[in-house]
Amino acid sequence: MQRYLVFILLLLGTGFSSACSAWQTAEPAPLLVEKQSFTFENYTTVSGQTIPEVTVGWESYGELNEAKDNVILITHFFSGNSHAAGKYSADDPLPGYWDSIIGPGKAIDTNKYFVISSDTLVNAFPHDPNVITTGPASINPVTGKPYGLDFPVVTIRDFVNVQERLLASLGIQQLHAVVGASMGSLQALEWAVAYPDKVERMVSVIGAGAMDAWTIMALEHWARPIRNDPNWNNGDYYDDDAPLTGVTSTLAMITQQAMHPIIMNMRAPKPEVMPAAMLESVTNSSPVLDYLFANSAVRAPLADANHLLYLVRANQLFVAGHEESLANGMAKVQAKTLFLPASNDLLLQPYLAQQAVAALQEQGQEPQYEEIEGVWGHLDGLFSIGSKAETLKTFIESE
Amino acid sequence: MQRYLVFILLLLGTGFSSACSAWQTAEPAPLLVEKQSFTFENYTTVSGQTIPEVTVGWESYGELNEAKDNVILITHFFSGNSHAAGKYSADDPLPGYWDSIIGPGKAIDTNKYFVISSDTLVNAFPHDPNVITTGPASINPVTGKPYGLDFPVVTIRDFVNVQERLLASLGIQQLHAVVGASMGSLQALEWAVAYPDKVERMVSVIGAGAMDAWTIMALEHWARPIRNDPNWNNGDYYDDDAPLTGVTSTLAMITQQAMHPIIMNMRAPKPEVMPAAMLESVTNSSPVLDYLFANSAVRAPLADANHLLYLVRANQLFVAGHEESLANGMAKVQAKTLFLPASNDLLLQPYLAQQAVAALQEQGQEPQYEEIEGVWGHLDGLFSIGSKAETLKTFIESE
Repeated sequence: MQRYLVFILLLLGTGFSSACSAWQTAEPAPLLVEKQSFTFENYTTVSGQTIPEVTVGWESYGELNEAKDNVILITHFFSGNSHAAGKYSADDPLPGYWDSIIGPGKAIDTNKYFVISSDTLVNAFPHDPNVITTGPASINPVTGKPYGLDFPVVTIRDFVNVQERLLASLGIQQLHAVVGASMGSLQALEWAVAYPDKVERMVSVIGAGAMDAWTIMALEHWARPIRNDPNWNNGDYYDDDAPLTGVTSTLAMITQQAMHPIIMNMRAPKPEVMPAAMLESVTNSSPVLDYLFANSAVRAPLADANHLLYLVRANQLFVAGHEESLANGMAKVQAKTLFLPASNDLLLQPYLAQQAVAALQEQGQEPQYEEIEGVWGHLDGLFSIGSKAETLKTFIESE
Repeated sequence: MQRYLVFILLLLGTGFSSACSAWQTAEPAPLLVEKQSFTFENYTTVSGQTIPEVTVGWESYGELNEAKDNVILITHFFSGNSHAAGKYSADDPLPGYWDSIIGPGKAIDTNKYFVISSDTLVNAFPHDPNVITTGPASINPVTGKPYGLDFPVVTIRDFVNVQERLLASLGIQQLHAVVGASMGSLQALEWAVAYPDKVERMVSVIGAGAMDAWTIMALEHWARPIRNDPNWNNGDYYDDDAPLTGVTSTLAMITQQAMHPIIMNMRAPKPEVMPAAMLESVTNSSPVLDYLFANSAVRAPLADANHLLYLVRANQLFVAGHEESLANGMAKVQAKTLFLPASNDLLLQPYLAQQAVAALQEQGQEPQYEEIEGVWGHLDGLFSIGSKAETLKTFIESE
């Protein structure tokens, strides 16, 4: 995922890399982290099927105290992984995605808390050497071959259940907080519903309480380029060429939709006026299109087409608690809650977080709600999170 | 395109059909219209190529006066055609798309004005029996076969130039106004730039002055499902199966993105909680997905895959005037101008109309600007246009 961040860096241009230099200056000795791995056997999914062996990667920042009650879990977004903070080595070009709020003295203070982050099941980029996940691209021990579509459909609750096993293996029974952005926010909220007595604080960044029809359809558009790629072959492509054309289209769509026009137009090349190539053929590209698609094409081989389909489905199936209604799920929440949607988010618009807030209020709860302002759109949940550092710190350190 | 409107009706559900009944009650004798056809030879495109024969359909409402100076041109949107008002027969289920503002005594009053609307080049639905267009699916007189990708790339300026020929054939040299929504707004603005001395008033509904990088990318996502469909065969599929899987994905994407979540969630089935089919396989569908994709699949055979690619490209290439900059183009406008973007539009957001307004203001012009409020998103430009009837009428009838 180092590489993933480098691609994001390439995509975003030089402004971001100077921001990165600033971080480096401010922090001459970066938090060094190490990817670890957790394996357990015979996991039964929400859909009632058994996965013989589950392995997921994880990393941590800060020290677990003796009482094991200073734990903050970070849950990752759709295209992300467990590298939330720090660097693997001092010369890594970029730190983890939320390094601006996780570290010594930061909003999520690693001098006080043991911060742990895990790769989800069916992570989008299983071929990234820094990702450890179990999904359709994993070897099915029964057949000795990749599962493909034999892998059971999994849900956000399954991601949470696997994290619960990981924490239990470390003797952790209680979460001071769980914090996640986007798909990570779904996991954070699901934690508060599924294990209400274990979760003291829950932070949902650019999140939702349940997927609505519009978003379920938007997610489906991410699946179709893969399913319509002849190389996909109904999920059975592991001995052959992967459906990289479809994966590239999917990644390009995700990138564009996660960014607000303001930032995209600032970063992308200026559209040319009457460019000869575009006028010559409808299939000719342009610098604007290359900017989006070339980066997606470079990232595509690190992704797995089936994993992307499983992630889409897990998100489409989400309603907090996976109960009859959002209200029924929310009735279980005992944690203090904080919701931080992004005002300019075009993907998971603030109304989705507001629905979750309203459902909690109807239960007599007092959820906290603030909007992140920024030009990034959905990605304000990652790149503008620093603007909510004080809010976060106060919430995390509250009684 | 009757059928197209019926599909929209199916998609929107019963609320819209009762609105339709209300119109029928209010207007027992509907404006009856007839599709007509205009052909001319040897059109040279902006890209410098010659199309031996161009034929486009058109229809009109109201009477052309003797001076031929009471003409209002209506230019159509991406998925639309020239059926802007009235019905082909009294028992048509629905009238043209802007019937709420075009007709006797309406905002665009057919008792005063001769309103004319034409199908564009490369119309998206050439296999709709009510559409008459010339594009890649047309027979190339040189080869006796469909053009396919031999058809030249065309621009919004080409659409306008063809309309100018049509009007000239009717002896019309002056437009009282040109009015269009979405892609129609691009044509309306291009008219005011390309033929400044012919256009007295210009109305841009849910429009833009120029495509920006973000929108060019968004449009590209509409092209990729077609280009990635193996049946597309580099545009040469007319003797074989059409790439309907790709076309269906494209139409589904357009439909979802043109609608705001508010209206989509009101109309679509409520997402099921943990539906057995979706949990069984990532390829299984759901009522929410069927709602979107089944309708798109029904419409797909009326569309042409290459035409959709050419339309995408025409829109991607748009900057008013097709000059070095938007300012250069806008400097030519002499018409009074009115811009009506939709507040909730997620496809062509109001900032795009605001850029055109700012460019005109910098030229010392006084463009008028109001936002359409509604729950439809981009489609507020069609379905909520009635809320701007007074503004429109005042503008159209102003000196």
